[in-house]
Amino acid sequence: MSTLASNLSLKAFRAAFLDFTDDPFYVAESESVRYLADGLLIVENGIIRDFGTYDKLKAQYSDLPTTTYRDRLIIPGLIDIHIHLPQMEMIGAYGEQLLEWLEKYTFPTERKFGDKDYADKVTKLFFDELLRNGTTTALILATVHPDSVESCFEEAIRRNLRIIAGKVMMDRNAPDFLRDTAQTSYQDTKNLIEKWHGKGRLAYAVTPRFAITSTPEQLAIAGELLQEYPDVYLHTHLSENVKEVELATQLYPACTDYLNIYEQYGLVGQRSIFAHGIQLTDSEFERLSRAGSAIAFCPTSNLFLGSGLFNVDKAKSAETPIKVGLATDVGAGTSFSMLQTASSAYQVAQLRGQRLSAFKALFLATLGAAKSLSLEDKIGSFNIGNEADFVVLDPRATPLMAFRNSIAIPSTLEELSEQLFAMIILGDDRTVSATYVMGDLAYGRSGE
Amino acid sequence: MSTLASNLSLKAFRAAFLDFTDDPFYVAESESVRYLADGLLIVENGIIRDFGTYDKLKAQYSDLPTTTYRDRLIIPGLIDIHIHLPQMEMIGAYGEQLLEWLEKYTFPTERKFGDKDYADKVTKLFFDELLRNGTTTALILATVHPDSVESCFEEAIRRNLRIIAGKVMMDRNAPDFLRDTAQTSYQDTKNLIEKWHGKGRLAYAVTPRFAITSTPEQLAIAGELLQEYPDVYLHTHLSENVKEVELATQLYPACTDYLNIYEQYGLVGQRSIFAHGIQLTDSEFERLSRAGSAIAFCPTSNLFLGSGLFNVDKAKSAETPIKVGLATDVGAGTSFSMLQTASSAYQVAQLRGQRLSAFKALFLATLGAAKSLSLEDKIGSFNIGNEADFVVLDPRATPLMAFRNSIAIPSTLEELSEQLFAMIILGDDRTVSATYVMGDLAYGRSGE
Repeated sequence: MSTLASNLSLKAFRAAFLDFTDDPFYVAESESVRYLADGLLIVENGIIRDFGTYDKLKAQYSDLPTTTYRDRLIIPGLIDIHIHLPQMEMIGAYGEQLLEWLEKYTFPTERKFGDKDYADKVTKLFFDELLRNGTTTALILATVHPDSVESCFEEAIRRNLRIIAGKVMMDRNAPDFLRDTAQTSYQDTKNLIEKWHGKGRLAYAVTPRFAITSTPEQLAIAGELLQEYPDVYLHTHLSENVKEVELATQLYPACTDYLNIYEQYGLVGQRSIFAHGIQLTDSEFERLSRAGSAIAFCPTSNLFLGSGLFNVDKAKSAETPIKVGLATDVGAGTSFSMLQTASSAYQVAQLRGQRLSAFKALFLATLGAAKSLSLEDKIGSFNIGNEADFVVLDPRATPLMAFRNSIAIPSTLEELSEQLFAMIILGDDRTVSATYVMGDLAYGRSGE
Repeated sequence: MSTLASNLSLKAFRAAFLDFTDDPFYVAESESVRYLADGLLIVENGIIRDFGTYDKLKAQYSDLPTTTYRDRLIIPGLIDIHIHLPQMEMIGAYGEQLLEWLEKYTFPTERKFGDKDYADKVTKLFFDELLRNGTTTALILATVHPDSVESCFEEAIRRNLRIIAGKVMMDRNAPDFLRDTAQTSYQDTKNLIEKWHGKGRLAYAVTPRFAITSTPEQLAIAGELLQEYPDVYLHTHLSENVKEVELATQLYPACTDYLNIYEQYGLVGQRSIFAHGIQLTDSEFERLSRAGSAIAFCPTSNLFLGSGLFNVDKAKSAETPIKVGLATDVGAGTSFSMLQTASSAYQVAQLRGQRLSAFKALFLATLGAAKSLSLEDKIGSFNIGNEADFVVLDPRATPLMAFRNSIAIPSTLEELSEQLFAMIILGDDRTVSATYVMGDLAYGRSGE
């Protein structure tokens, strides 16, 4: 055993742990939730080497120095599958719905990222904010400028984060100063893929903004890139707002519906992530299910822009199951916190007469999101062999939460479900005591 | 001038100030908003004695010690016109819509208030939470137990708060342990009015829970109490949820609609406040307008229970103007913060295709709420002669807000509007640096 204690790359964490071993939308929660009221997580060189109850593992790791988080709940690092890095500074911009909001706020803000120094500055704050909120993986849109992706990946690699990002491709229906061309977008994207994809924990997403701002030529180019590099992602927007759907289908009159535009250009596959999907038809749901694509459910954005209410029960139905992950969609989304995002997801479901339990919501922000990114063998759970990204939550972080959650660590799943729900409804960045990336402390609240 | 300095009851506060002199739903915002980027507020014995720009007043009060809040915005104390005190501990209870939620969570929780010691304990925490969030006046439902009102008023008078509250009247469709009778509710309410109404800053509200839980005899008794005590308030629920409306009108088959039930018993007047009003018909809107009654708009509750979306533009239309105030509706509402409540109000409006500006939202939580309670001559603005309840806000309270609001104190109304909106969307209890009641510090964030 003394070999363990002298192994400096080994770390032990003791606390309550919660993660998922299956999908609570398809099997009973008791079959999908893994809860250890007193657990031990062993990390070696950033990878989970062992995980189980403290009672079971304590003898084996008895001489290993252990970081104990009393009255804390540790969950896998949160995963945000749709967020706009440059929009951080315009979060909470007033008064518009989607298309007007792009014109009035988004494009002028994204223009500033033509300046690499400025992009670097915002990017640093952006990653600070992700970690303050316990988010360890994100699927990110940069701007049309290739340098904006450089800033993003440079900072992500400095922090050792698992990040997927891409340069926005946009060659029409946008101001001159934010337009590329089909050809430049091909070359810039190709260069970025060659330089960054697969480097450290990074991956690239081919990122046409949406059908409205790309010519058919550009969407064809995006399809070609996916052919050339079959393990990169496709990341775009789909069917958010009624007017957007009308405009998109007008621009592609030969296509039968919005999704069909992306289908025509070979953009709908197992590594494709579509943000929103609020206005999807039954046929589109079926085809997304068959293709194995994922939808990013962005509830604070649904409510803030008034675009409509995503039908999560339909997307997660047994008939046409679709991979779904939760996402903030900052800056149309109003919070970096995946807890607050889960709270809005509950509201969206309620307004549709649906029920989204705390466990289902958390699944969508951890293992469900990892599956949406085909990364469930690396992140999203405490499975042995996964990367040790995790978040330490304080169920009693504010006076109101302390009153509401009188017992910090519940003993039954039912009590845990109630408590987790209260943490979602009342929680914010203060609920995150600490964030670990590959077993290293990346953020800690003062006093923790 | 030395007489001023030696007058210990005189206090001066210097900061940026924002309040309303008129209703921004009916006149231009530039005509209704009063903004002093550098203002001075003079308080004497808890009453506003003078208010104006620092430049204008500084000579007159030059030898008065002044509390200066740099980079802070002072607004009138926030007013919450519908909140359930006993429901604090069940805030964020999972999964139900209105009627089931009452059965499953509310009634068991309210039962605990039969124990005065328990009620005292929760009441203290409740008022702590109000002040942490900058709320200085609230219209409160206690429980069916007369002692619950005693707890509430005892604590309110200790803190010198302007509070309106009442014992819930409920003599059917509720568990035995929470039912009164028409006769006991009459006597208990009468005793409480005699003891508390008009004492200090307190006022009483006759509070039948809603038509469903009161017999015709009890609503008639409520009407009699309003006749006997014409300056008390009437506070109840109206037209929140579709099933509730059906059930209420079934229980009162002689009445033409939900509002007509309350009309029949003389409960619809200028001092009546109805919570919700989500499902109101055009006729009901018209009659509420003519009667001069008020509606409590409870957006976090609308979204959390999925009851529907209040039509604020209709209620504030020029044709059928109705007094409207913002309200948390804790525990169906999910936050004590009137800033977060205003954020949800914006979302509700967006989903209806309406626009609720930051100024309009703040109006509904200050002067608009004061008007809903017929208290605009006492609270809700910095008018001279009013009581000096106010809140010191920090526009840069979190790292994200600091980045978003790069300038703490804007110079133009347009900039202020954008900044206030970001404070509403991103703000929470941390945005409140300090809360003053009658010119005395009642809450201050540590470090402030």
